[in-house]
Amino acid sequence: MSDNKKTTIVLFSGDYDKAMAAYIIANGAAAYDHDVTIFHTFWGLNALRKDAQVPVKKGLMEKLFGKMMPRGADKMGLSKMNYLGMGQKMIKSVVKKHNALPLPQLVEMAQEQDVKLIACTMTMDLLGLKKEELLDEIEYGGVAAYIGEAENGNVSLFI
Amino acid sequence: MSDNKKTTIVLFSGDYDKAMAAYIIANGAAAYDHDVTIFHTFWGLNALRKDAQVPVKKGLMEKLFGKMMPRGADKMGLSKMNYLGMGQKMIKSVVKKHNALPLPQLVEMAQEQDVKLIACTMTMDLLGLKKEELLDEIEYGGVAAYIGEAENGNVSLFI
Amino acid sequence: MSDNKKTTIVLFSGDYDKAMAAYIIANGAAAYDHDVTIFHTFWGLNALRKDAQVPVKKGLMEKLFGKMMPRGADKMGLSKMNYLGMGQKMIKSVVKKHNALPLPQLVEMAQEQDVKLIACTMTMDLLGLKKEELLDEIEYGGVAAYIGEAENGNVSLFI
Repeated sequence: MSDNKKTTIVLFSGDYDKAMAAYIIANGAAAYDHDVTIFHTFWGLNALRKDAQVPVKKGLMEKLFGKMMPRGADKMGLSKMNYLGMGQKMIKSVVKKHNALPLPQLVEMAQEQDVKLIACTMTMDLLGLKKEELLDEIEYGGVAAYIGEAENGNVSLFI
Repeated sequence: MSDNKKTTIVLFSGDYDKAMAAYIIANGAAAYDHDVTIFHTFWGLNALRKDAQVPVKKGLMEKLFGKMMPRGADKMGLSKMNYLGMGQKMIKSVVKKHNALPLPQLVEMAQEQDVKLIACTMTMDLLGLKKEELLDEIEYGGVAAYIGEAENGNVSLFI
Repeated sequence: MSDNKKTTIVLFSGDYDKAMAAYIIANGAAAYDHDVTIFHTFWGLNALRKDAQVPVKKGLMEKLFGKMMPRGADKMGLSKMNYLGMGQKMIKSVVKKHNALPLPQLVEMAQEQDVKLIACTMTMDLLGLKKEELLDEIEYGGVAAYIGEAENGNVSLFI
């Protein structure tokens, strides 16, 4: 076990702005030498979805969830003032204008900084998401994995 | 004071999926020998409501809040894609299909595992909820009780 | 560095009820001698806006965000059951009736108790908020400031 400080984030939300906040904090903590883990559960799993459609066998409910949920970080909506996607376009536009990083690049940067990205297997089952649909080089685990990470940490957040 | 690790959760949200996440984390932490407390405030109090209507005297505003808020864990809506209750039905259906526990059973399991369930008395006052309307065998407290629990903990979350 | 316990809150949400919860916890922790910091980011910045309109130069997007976002704590909506402002009126009415403090007074009390209020400069840029539009006597910082506060803390919350 390293002597580094430790930040553990549960990303439950599937909102573009909340996921941005989660990944900005994660990348910031990693830059300050924290060991950082993001545990993606429920709608937060969508931040890990590939944007291409991946053909996988699913039940009816799981197909429906698959269709209703955004395919990847770039397609997620805002938590506030989304207005059928206009708010999200506005955020992306100001992110670009101010040379900030859009969400897909924040996820990439996190992977480059060795932030541990875990997908919650229990909610993957519930929502019918398959490993083939999620980004490569992530880890998989349940609530035990989360507790193990969080209980020795310095900063723990639920977003 | 025990030597166990300690997890303290503020459950503010009245959403079915967020309350599920809170109780899954709480039950997981309890299984790993944490002392666990869930402090229910604002809409999170609805997870502790009995499903039967309990006759109590209330002012007009409090009656209105009482009518507008879901009566118990089983009746709470989703944070996303609720679509007038369809999303909640879908979640309940996949929870059943995958042999996961629905919210009311998660609350029961938490009580069996001695997770401390606290109802925030200040917001009970605001929303006009009476002790008779909430589950038996829970505790009552204010922000001081919460701080007392959280400040010596290892994991603290706001959900 | 003081020997006090430490509570650090990220206020991301622009909802009246969530901001109330954040400030009640902050004031409670301060009363129990914690060093308390609230780091305001994204919509949470609106809790720090002055209610008067302040003439500042802005680009088109920033003007639009400025118009769409509530001007100050008193004008924020509810996270649930807002119903075009009715829910917010109801909450304010019961807060008054039960002699609880409305949000603007909770912010004042936090300032009197030396709770450190930080505005996130990166999201101020994104949303086009200028220092002139925010309350006096607050501090400014980015994610590094937040990590610095949170990593040595006892309670850390994302609201």
